[in-house]
Amino acid sequence: MRRAVSAAIGGRATAALRLSLPLPRSLLLHTTQRRSRAVGVSLGRRNNASFFHSKSRDGHAEALGTAVDKEVADGSVRVSIEDIMDRRAKAGRLVALTAAYSDSDMFKGPTANKPKAKRWDHHLSPESAVREPCVLKSAAKHLKNPGLISLGGGLPCAEYFPFESLSLRVPASPNFSEAATRGPGGADLRIGKYDVAAGVAEYDLSIALNYGQANGSAQMTRWVTEHTELVCDPPYADWRCALTVGSTAALEQALRMLCRRGDGVLTEEYSFSTAIETAGPLGVRVVGVEMDGQGLLPESMETVLAGWDESSSGRRPHVLYTVPSGQNPTGATQGERRRRAIYEVARRWDVFILEDEPYYFLQMEPYQKGGSRTVEGGAVAAATMPVNDFLGGLIPSLLSMDVDGRVLRMDSFSKVVVPGSRLGWVTGSEQIIERYIRHAEVCNQGPSGFSQVILHKLLDEQWGHEGYLRWLMNLRGEYTKRRDVILGACETYLPRDVVSWSAPAAGMFHWLKVDHTRHPSFPQQSILEIEEDIFNRCIKKGVLVGRGSWFRAEQHKAPRDMFFRTTYAAATPENMTEAIKRLGAAIRESYGM
Amino acid sequence: MRRAVSAAIGGRATAALRLSLPLPRSLLLHTTQRRSRAVGVSLGRRNNASFFHSKSRDGHAEALGTAVDKEVADGSVRVSIEDIMDRRAKAGRLVALTAAYSDSDMFKGPTANKPKAKRWDHHLSPESAVREPCVLKSAAKHLKNPGLISLGGGLPCAEYFPFESLSLRVPASPNFSEAATRGPGGADLRIGKYDVAAGVAEYDLSIALNYGQANGSAQMTRWVTEHTELVCDPPYADWRCALTVGSTAALEQALRMLCRRGDGVLTEEYSFSTAIETAGPLGVRVVGVEMDGQGLLPESMETVLAGWDESSSGRRPHVLYTVPSGQNPTGATQGERRRRAIYEVARRWDVFILEDEPYYFLQMEPYQKGGSRTVEGGAVAAATMPVNDFLGGLIPSLLSMDVDGRVLRMDSFSKVVVPGSRLGWVTGSEQIIERYIRHAEVCNQGPSGFSQVILHKLLDEQWGHEGYLRWLMNLRGEYTKRRDVILGACETYLPRDVVSWSAPAAGMFHWLKVDHTRHPSFPQQSILEIEEDIFNRCIKKGVLVGRGSWFRAEQHKAPRDMFFRTTYAAATPENMTEAIKRLGAAIRESYGM
Repeated sequence: MRRAVSAAIGGRATAALRLSLPLPRSLLLHTTQRRSRAVGVSLGRRNNASFFHSKSRDGHAEALGTAVDKEVADGSVRVSIEDIMDRRAKAGRLVALTAAYSDSDMFKGPTANKPKAKRWDHHLSPESAVREPCVLKSAAKHLKNPGLISLGGGLPCAEYFPFESLSLRVPASPNFSEAATRGPGGADLRIGKYDVAAGVAEYDLSIALNYGQANGSAQMTRWVTEHTELVCDPPYADWRCALTVGSTAALEQALRMLCRRGDGVLTEEYSFSTAIETAGPLGVRVVGVEMDGQGLLPESMETVLAGWDESSSGRRPHVLYTVPSGQNPTGATQGERRRRAIYEVARRWDVFILEDEPYYFLQMEPYQKGGSRTVEGGAVAAATMPVNDFLGGLIPSLLSMDVDGRVLRMDSFSKVVVPGSRLGWVTGSEQIIERYIRHAEVCNQGPSGFSQVILHKLLDEQWGHEGYLRWLMNLRGEYTKRRDVILGACETYLPRDVVSWSAPAAGMFHWLKVDHTRHPSFPQQSILEIEEDIFNRCIKKGVLVGRGSWFRAEQHKAPRDMFFRTTYAAATPENMTEAIKRLGAAIRESYGM
Repeated sequence: MRRAVSAAIGGRATAALRLSLPLPRSLLLHTTQRRSRAVGVSLGRRNNASFFHSKSRDGHAEALGTAVDKEVADGSVRVSIEDIMDRRAKAGRLVALTAAYSDSDMFKGPTANKPKAKRWDHHLSPESAVREPCVLKSAAKHLKNPGLISLGGGLPCAEYFPFESLSLRVPASPNFSEAATRGPGGADLRIGKYDVAAGVAEYDLSIALNYGQANGSAQMTRWVTEHTELVCDPPYADWRCALTVGSTAALEQALRMLCRRGDGVLTEEYSFSTAIETAGPLGVRVVGVEMDGQGLLPESMETVLAGWDESSSGRRPHVLYTVPSGQNPTGATQGERRRRAIYEVARRWDVFILEDEPYYFLQMEPYQKGGSRTVEGGAVAAATMPVNDFLGGLIPSLLSMDVDGRVLRMDSFSKVVVPGSRLGWVTGSEQIIERYIRHAEVCNQGPSGFSQVILHKLLDEQWGHEGYLRWLMNLRGEYTKRRDVILGACETYLPRDVVSWSAPAAGMFHWLKVDHTRHPSFPQQSILEIEEDIFNRCIKKGVLVGRGSWFRAEQHKAPRDMFFRTTYAAATPENMTEAIKRLGAAIRESYGM
């Protein structure tokens, strides 16, 4: 087990406030212990202008319309893992006790050369605009006073927490397989109740399992802030992160922050059904934007906005919800040029963007009939490929282009670590994140302490930023294999004269278009009726797929085409192949083939 | 480590659906293994009409106005731990795989002789009324079909979860101290990734860490349902539980379910500040009801409702939010008679009740000057006192009196296990719980899987219902000691001629009334100004207390009295005494004594 940086006390991190029981002062005056972190691959300070978000080696990004990253092309230098570890060493050991206040500014690199985000007051709902800070949490400012005894907050005493320690068996980077984890190469991690007081860790059960701040612990805030800087490096100064209880919750909070009843929200014409179901009861109308193989079409977005008649349709939509990578349900991935065009339309019409990116790191190499080289080399690549090549090959996020601070990016561990952590994070401008936290304080109060301390132990102490990126490299290799299995099965078993598809470039979903015009019952039967017929035949034959109509942004409009959603995330390769075979049989039967 | 019941497959529990990857069918056909659970104390089937919720031995409940429990007096027989364990053995091993559907009806005892709850359609907000089930979760009904392969839901494969096992060091009942836990008496628990497939447990990491149902796992739903039946035994048939991400979130959801902008919600005139802050931004007005030493006054509630002028003040409040035990901030505890009276007012005016009970189990024996017998005997009592005496001594909950199904009770582990679990549960009628779950599906999606599987391992497998009740008995003994310390310090160090209080009978808070009329600056200075002066002197002298005005339900009205809230939950006994000494000095200084 690798230990976290343990260095001199001092720097901005120690500004974190303590809300609770005064712990021994010795803790705050821990003697200097400088041990540099073992980073598997030493990364030089980068001056390569297109280091991140540049074209990938195999031209995949080019196929998706990658252009040169403008901000980086301007000559600014992006942060490296080494920069971050240097910064940590300089800041000194993180001292953040029970319910300590923290924010991303404590952990970010210099942002002096970046502009500040715009203000979004005119976008805020009345509900969000009037939120005040929690009076009890505000009183915590007095806890800075040396020697003060708090009879203020009703935080239970850790003595009564029935957990003395928590241990984990996890993979050691870069050998991530279950077999390696079970074998001698696996790592055993232990989290004690009082590890911080004992000076053996920066986070422990006594802190994680007590009340905390709604935006999450300082320990995990540092980690997600650094990770976001590595991956997205937002081009404005006052960006911040806040932990969430997952992106579904983040979306609901964001809609309540930005929309009032009667407002419209733009999204892909086929969109995540839960997102659509979230908006409806809030009285928020979902407005579909046309798509192609790269997802949302900026021209269509422009057309919707330009043609909006406020006198008949109410306020012009001022929010876009989009899943740029491996979109659910279509699997479509926006290339860089597409993203920049969408961002420009948003600027032109003053649209705020909710960027939902659970599948961002599941960007894959292009599918090659009969199996790509990634299939064989995934694990090897994850172990040996420089992490910067991985990061450099990813399509830039909308957040990374966001000069205005008009993007709220939603990140999630659900698809890349475990869904059950119910822990993710949002990144946006200081104003928007502050409003988000005010809301979280009076609803979910932030993620589980178990989830926070366990992920911190794994991601920060055990793997570090590099190990986590290697984990992601390995994972996308695994999903690439799975994608290739389902695509191979589709080629073999589906009737190509009526079923068509694009190979997914990211994510977990494969979207199949079935040509309703060639169905013998069309137009006597509607698309929805034919879709239902095929779905029912699928169930009878023993395969469950998603009906395309479930995902229509505008449920009241009749669909123009017929689709089915399949996932390659869950079933075994054998079952996946069998399932596609059954789907093919169901379609043939319905079409009388 | 004690193992859970492992018995024949069958019964209602196996009706739980599977939403995800078909696991080996062998799992569903596990051979019969009947091992009865070791219950430390064998509890006979009770026919004592006032077995639960009867008067406690020392007359404490009487002092709080306990009357004979009507339902039990009617001759019905309440459930015992033994009944529950018998029921589990008959139902057979719980088979609930990834994202299995479950509800309390699968785990409750017979309810045939109970009426059904009333319908609450007229109480639901437009937002809540229109919620539809998640289309993707509804599709899960097809997963019952044998042999069906799902390409439906995008649930990741557990193979990619980087947690092979999770282990815990916890106290073994009834030796709950930290020292005993660290010593040879402590228990080591282990949760493997595939314990269920291996047949060694009913819950494991592969299930807990995947997506689940928003109302929580079947495993924890069973536990909270049984616990609620043991403690509250709601007197109507169709009650159900749903897990929550904590009671703050549950309150916010409940307000959104029941209220529209402009509505008023009744609560104690001094109330939990976070609750007040939750209501405000929703446009929900908080209406204070007068209190005495037992908390909310039913006569005042009647007066407010009877005198409500809908033409000038809008819709008459139809929701009451109350903390019956150890109310925050006053520490007041409603006796049984008080609760019944409040319930009757609610029936008369058709008011729906939100019963927030984080401190329910921290009901204490009466304070005796110089230390009660509990101070010495707490741990001993927790080890030897029959758990039924403990349950029988608790004041009945509003839920236990709720013949209409008009109560939504909010339970929490925050004050009695760990706040960081962000896990609690609500209990209410099937209709209300269904609406609650529909909301949770599109916001928080239920609690962390880490929290669920860890609490299940501790509470269900390790401690069982009896061990958990013993834990609670021990804990209230600990809080009794702490309460007695602060009360002793108050007697010693506060100027009794201007400061007065009642000894708290439950919870974590001690509420001090300071007589503003005797302040030399009154009435030249307002109560708020004098309160501020004392607060600032406290900070200067090194003690943080809560200002009474922070907790006023109706912030815009001038207070009639002056209060300060202190907590005995967190500081060490020595610091607590010192802090009260400083508070006394600050008050004397302000009063020029």
